[in-house]
Amino acid sequence: MDHGATILEQADVLAAITEEPGRITRTYLTPQHRQAGERILDWMREAGMQAEFDPLGNVVGRYEASDPDAPIVMTGSHMDSVVNAGRFDGVFGILSAIACVRDLSARGQRLPFTFEVVAFGDEEGVRFGVTLIGSKALGGSFDPIFLDKRDANGVTLRDAIVAFGGDPDAIPKLKRDPKRVAAFVESHIEQGPVLLNEGLPVGVVTSIAGASRVRVKVTGLAGHAGTVPMPGRRDALAAASEMVLAIERHCLQRADTLVGTVGKLAIGGGGAINVIPGEVDFTVDLRSGNDQTRLVATDAIEAECRAIAQRRNVDVSWESFFHLRAAPCDPRLQAALAASIAAHGIAVRHLPSGAGHDAMEMANIAPIAMLFVRCGEGGISHNPLETMTREDAAIATSVFLHFLEHLDPRTLTTR
Amino acid sequence: MDHGATILEQADVLAAITEEPGRITRTYLTPQHRQAGERILDWMREAGMQAEFDPLGNVVGRYEASDPDAPIVMTGSHMDSVVNAGRFDGVFGILSAIACVRDLSARGQRLPFTFEVVAFGDEEGVRFGVTLIGSKALGGSFDPIFLDKRDANGVTLRDAIVAFGGDPDAIPKLKRDPKRVAAFVESHIEQGPVLLNEGLPVGVVTSIAGASRVRVKVTGLAGHAGTVPMPGRRDALAAASEMVLAIERHCLQRADTLVGTVGKLAIGGGGAINVIPGEVDFTVDLRSGNDQTRLVATDAIEAECRAIAQRRNVDVSWESFFHLRAAPCDPRLQAALAASIAAHGIAVRHLPSGAGHDAMEMANIAPIAMLFVRCGEGGISHNPLETMTREDAAIATSVFLHFLEHLDPRTLTTR
Repeated sequence: MDHGATILEQADVLAAITEEPGRITRTYLTPQHRQAGERILDWMREAGMQAEFDPLGNVVGRYEASDPDAPIVMTGSHMDSVVNAGRFDGVFGILSAIACVRDLSARGQRLPFTFEVVAFGDEEGVRFGVTLIGSKALGGSFDPIFLDKRDANGVTLRDAIVAFGGDPDAIPKLKRDPKRVAAFVESHIEQGPVLLNEGLPVGVVTSIAGASRVRVKVTGLAGHAGTVPMPGRRDALAAASEMVLAIERHCLQRADTLVGTVGKLAIGGGGAINVIPGEVDFTVDLRSGNDQTRLVATDAIEAECRAIAQRRNVDVSWESFFHLRAAPCDPRLQAALAASIAAHGIAVRHLPSGAGHDAMEMANIAPIAMLFVRCGEGGISHNPLETMTREDAAIATSVFLHFLEHLDPRTLTTR
Repeated sequence: MDHGATILEQADVLAAITEEPGRITRTYLTPQHRQAGERILDWMREAGMQAEFDPLGNVVGRYEASDPDAPIVMTGSHMDSVVNAGRFDGVFGILSAIACVRDLSARGQRLPFTFEVVAFGDEEGVRFGVTLIGSKALGGSFDPIFLDKRDANGVTLRDAIVAFGGDPDAIPKLKRDPKRVAAFVESHIEQGPVLLNEGLPVGVVTSIAGASRVRVKVTGLAGHAGTVPMPGRRDALAAASEMVLAIERHCLQRADTLVGTVGKLAIGGGGAINVIPGEVDFTVDLRSGNDQTRLVATDAIEAECRAIAQRRNVDVSWESFFHLRAAPCDPRLQAALAASIAAHGIAVRHLPSGAGHDAMEMANIAPIAMLFVRCGEGGISHNPLETMTREDAAIATSVFLHFLEHLDPRTLTTR
């Protein structure tokens, strides 16, 4: 079977199911969600699975073990997208898993565990501003207050679930039993350039990075660009620029374990060509697979920014408003994925995931692992340029299938 | 006569004539312009001048020499304001000159030149987007295409002049005769902190700075803040930050002759907390009293920015869109102002004007000079916090009067 070709064709089919003609936008609980989910249901059933929408609009397929008491190994990823998305983010993990089942099923091969494939209805959080809704429910961290969140038209998540034919009251029952689930293993396009730059089709994720986010406000003194001499200026933009470079330098020096980005920066009131900026706001996003590294870096960068502010006689306010712990991948599952990669004659590259994934939430109920697949075009994602070759799709699926066929769930401890 | 107190009272009277209750906004050819002009007319006449609105809405007062063939010495400044302005910008130069005439007239003192005081109707350019309309007309650089400029309500400058009772067709005749005008000498609040920081009430302007303005676009590569490793990033904001600091450093090293400001900076699309900025636009404003200094600095800064771009593998576009030559002040007039300051026992401080003034345009028909007066509150202007003490208003008026009484127009060459 040419799994690579099938996956690329199916990704094209899903890409055509979009809210915006000419670009891929598929958000939670929309007609496009239903339509995409129904195609996935069909493909799951054709592959030999039992499959249904669950009460939250996730599509869940099961490839049963012969032993009804066998543990469960889960996989899955999301079928929703960002606005103007690429076609593989999320979708690849679903289609690759279905391809594995199709292969097993064609050979009449059952596994020593029930294999459950989930197409999560929401990961990106575009419509309701809550991310990872599907995996939060299955991982047990769905907070009922999310049901009151509204979309841009004022529709609550609760009403949207009901309109979709779902059942908000069933959410607590969706949490998977940690005693039954031996692992959650997600395949995903890397969304970065690491594998591409190293010429490798796949890699093993070590950890899904934790993140710290900070809002910084620098307050100096506005003034006339022509009349205020350079010495003694309290230019908020010059101060912020120095902070941006300090953040970059700090992260570059620890580039194997840390990334840091100033993604927003704006002069108060927009600025004027002939006015010295008096106020600048910017954001900092720091990520690391190691929580200690991230927290130490956050503190060190804050201290550097405060020193810059003091030296420049400007004020700085530092509002740390978001912290997400890293989700480390299970060492035994990592080793098993690495063995399957090596069995294909491919050098094993371990790398962190800087982006968040459904596996983060599933880590609440099971050991997790992730297989990353090479992302073309310089590693671009969340963009129509996102791309994956047919060969890489085939290799990643073959590696995942090898992993499934060699995984002995008795070596894994459920909780 | 307590000229300081009178000037402050009159400034309060004008400040109350505003388009926006609670703040000072007085733009060209409005009822507030007429009302302020009529008060100025009254004060000019009370002081002993003949005074009229001219066909552009400038108020022109003349204190005639006894000899009708005597040369003319002009002064003046603007009666319009920016939005939410201070009360001394422009207005002080008018009121101080009227006070000088009141003093002379009370003593029956005539001058060996006709002294002409102009309250320009527009300098700030708020309403029609053309600055220095009054002085452009008197200096001979008014371009008739300006008459087609429209205000925010679509009214053309031409129609507004007519509605005000003026005459657009008379503009060419407003140009003053360079053979008759021996000097244009403007008093103005400094709008900066130099005199304040040095404890001096007045100073002699050496030159009205020329300016170069540039639009810079930095194009890197957007990417996911979590998935793109630090090395190899092409972060447009980090590159722009390095350029901002290079501009600041370059100007700081030449701070006695140069100021440079990045007043606007924006990430393309506004940026997102989790996206590496792919595009940044910013502006550069460079000013110097010396054109050569400014042009050399502009080239050097462009070269530095291009080197930064090359090293960081980002593109930079450099659009130099505005050049204004410096207007140097006449050395003999500077010396005369300096002598009048010294005669008051005040240390003589020479300083450039970073802001533009009516005198720039009048330089087209006569030698110019400017007397700067200390600006309180850190030197803030174009802001309701702008302030000047009664004592400084009195000293500046006394210095200007001394200058007028000691100026021998035969020592000046008309053109």
